Amino acid sequence: MRIEMIATGDELMSGLTRDGNFFWAGDALNSIGLEIALHTTVGDDRERIEEAFGAALGRADAVIVSGGLGPTSDDLTAEVAARFFGAPLELNKEGLQSVMDRLKAKGRELTEKNRKQAFLPGGSRVLANRWGTAPGFSMVRDRTVYYFLPGVPREFQALMTEYVIPDLDARYKDRSPVRTKLVRTYGLPESEVARMLDGVEREGVRLGYRSHFPEIHLRLTAYGDTDSEAELRMSEMTADIMDRLGGYVFSTEGETLEEVIGKLLRERGMTLSTAESCTGGLIAHRITNVPGSSDYFLEGVVSYSNEAKMQILGVPKEALEAHGAVSAPVVEAMARGVRGLSGSGIGVAVSGIAGPSGGTEEKPVGTVFIGLDHVERGVSSGKFLFYGTREQIKLATSEKALDMIRKILLNNV
Amino acid sequence: MRIEMIATGDELMSGLTRDGNFFWAGDALNSIGLEIALHTTVGDDRERIEEAFGAALGRADAVIVSGGLGPTSDDLTAEVAARFFGAPLELNKEGLQSVMDRLKAKGRELTEKNRKQAFLPGGSRVLANRWGTAPGFSMVRDRTVYYFLPGVPREFQALMTEYVIPDLDARYKDRSPVRTKLVRTYGLPESEVARMLDGVEREGVRLGYRSHFPEIHLRLTAYGDTDSEAELRMSEMTADIMDRLGGYVFSTEGETLEEVIGKLLRERGMTLSTAESCTGGLIAHRITNVPGSSDYFLEGVVSYSNEAKMQILGVPKEALEAHGAVSAPVVEAMARGVRGLSGSGIGVAVSGIAGPSGGTEEKPVGTVFIGLDHVERGVSSGKFLFYGTREQIKLATSEKALDMIRKILLNNV
Repeated sequence: MRIEMIATGDELMSGLTRDGNFFWAGDALNSIGLEIALHTTVGDDRERIEEAFGAALGRADAVIVSGGLGPTSDDLTAEVAARFFGAPLELNKEGLQSVMDRLKAKGRELTEKNRKQAFLPGGSRVLANRWGTAPGFSMVRDRTVYYFLPGVPREFQALMTEYVIPDLDARYKDRSPVRTKLVRTYGLPESEVARMLDGVEREGVRLGYRSHFPEIHLRLTAYGDTDSEAELRMSEMTADIMDRLGGYVFSTEGETLEEVIGKLLRERGMTLSTAESCTGGLIAHRITNVPGSSDYFLEGVVSYSNEAKMQILGVPKEALEAHGAVSAPVVEAMARGVRGLSGSGIGVAVSGIAGPSGGTEEKPVGTVFIGLDHVERGVSSGKFLFYGTREQIKLATSEKALDMIRKILLNNV
Repeated sequence: MRIEMIATGDELMSGLTRDGNFFWAGDALNSIGLEIALHTTVGDDRERIEEAFGAALGRADAVIVSGGLGPTSDDLTAEVAARFFGAPLELNKEGLQSVMDRLKAKGRELTEKNRKQAFLPGGSRVLANRWGTAPGFSMVRDRTVYYFLPGVPREFQALMTEYVIPDLDARYKDRSPVRTKLVRTYGLPESEVARMLDGVEREGVRLGYRSHFPEIHLRLTAYGDTDSEAELRMSEMTADIMDRLGGYVFSTEGETLEEVIGKLLRERGMTLSTAESCTGGLIAHRITNVPGSSDYFLEGVVSYSNEAKMQILGVPKEALEAHGAVSAPVVEAMARGVRGLSGSGIGVAVSGIAGPSGGTEEKPVGTVFIGLDHVERGVSSGKFLFYGTREQIKLATSEKALDMIRKILLNNV
């Protein structure tokens, strides 16, 4: 079984549009145990499109083509397909019905441009499109089946879901049961994760790494002759990975770090507040991306200036003068200050040098202090050095702060 | 001249990672008048990778390969390249230097896994990587040059910029002069931008649309027989677009909205503070993504709870009780409060319902109030309704608030 995809469109080649259909289809097919063997993208060019169709012929069992079915002059897919299959374009009655139904639903008249969309290669199977005017279609040549779908993501996804995925699912009945899982880790470089997982791989499970700065994600795919074999392999592999990586793993069920913290805060009936300098609000932004976060997130202060640190958070002037804004005494006072201000169970504070300027020999760009004040465990802080651009340093700092909150909630510090 | 790209990685095939490198490279090459003819993506599979290398051989002049240079067992690119070029892997001194320099900069020791990254096909040209441990390399076969780059976006972009783009630029000297420009707009849907620009297209200039939520970007590419012809066509087209779109255009020189505001604040010697409820810190985060923003951004308050709105910002209890937290009187009081607290020239405040729950008939999810307090012009506010997910509503709100700041700074409200 070999499935290929071909995406067409000048906007994909020139950095104007990011191809979300491939990403979506990869996930949708993987989750039912199918995979895309090869993906090709070409511009709106007759020769290159036909070349791509030809390359897949015989080699692939199924080819999913997206884009080029619209009403404009650079929509070439049906025309090229007609030539490729040796089946001239003809007005397809079912196709015309699909176009007219859609126009009617939108209260629009049939135009010559839309009528063009119903001209399909002779002998096509029409994949009626209730989400847009372009009908999809499929054709078979030399036992390779080609599916032609519109490139508009909503329409692509709808026709995949309605026709292509059920088709492929039925076609490849004899494939192995499969389970997939995403394990998210933070705190180790990829090479170190790989070293700690050396030898963890086993029959029937595939392990893939994804660097998702500043996290490393592991994607596990377990196969088996039966569902329960796939299930067992997955749970054994997951347990082994957890044993090896321990607290570096923050999620095995797809949650983000901020979702994990939200869950922990909610379970423990704890509340949180933030005092941010160098992250400029990013920590609060991430925490509040989680629906329902108003239940445990009380308030945040972005104390960019020293005045704000003193005035709102009550950081002593002496601490700022003696140690500077980027120091342990100051982040500890900030954490204490914001926890006192909000009455939260935990206060977290960061101060650092995000760059690109402002670094010194003693405190280079990327130097960050993070303080925590916990209602029962008191105040603590740590000093860190992060690398990268301004935005990366902000992101790395927010991640570390969130991870410290996670660990204190797990009693793991 | 034919340039192809090959991306490798199971994570790309399985919907784990969206390929940003292709998107980035398409844009970067287009802006110097080069184009990608074909893009292929394959998983971490020796046969398929080699098949993709082979398909490009002879057909393409240059092939840019990304991914598979990491230290883990699914990083196969160097091994497959060695077989493809008939040049066995050997420890490359320059490559080892690149790895060691990078590890040293990060204060890390050389591990066996990292050492693996310095084994390159014999005769490779090393593309030293100062941004990560994986050195890139290039090889030539039958007049097709292959560039092998890491898949990590930051490293891919850095090696493209440092080696590949200058190489290709020099190689294809005889192409037409080209100018590109990105015009960023905010405030109109794409169909309306297209309607206002109907008929603006002219000989020698291409216009492409990119939806970059919540902004619409226009990509202009002007060609000419000479540099000055391309230049003239670009400036005429840009002037025409500015005439038609006016204040909806916020940048023609590549700046983000937050950079535009930063520039305006700096020019006018003004300072800014923020009081955020539903955006949860996102506005402050965006403002502080700009280097040097501490010169004009004084402080931010994320007043998620009503207590914070009253206690820190001095929002009257009566306003909260009479109108609710999501109301004009409350955002106006928040804006006044944060401006008073910080002493800034402008205070901006937002309060809304980001969802997915919390909406009512009167104030559905997406209802947002934005208030401004300006030192000379006093307090004003507006009510808006945004659509989308929680994160989209947060983003749309932050964009609108930043655009209101831009307009008040331009005296354009």
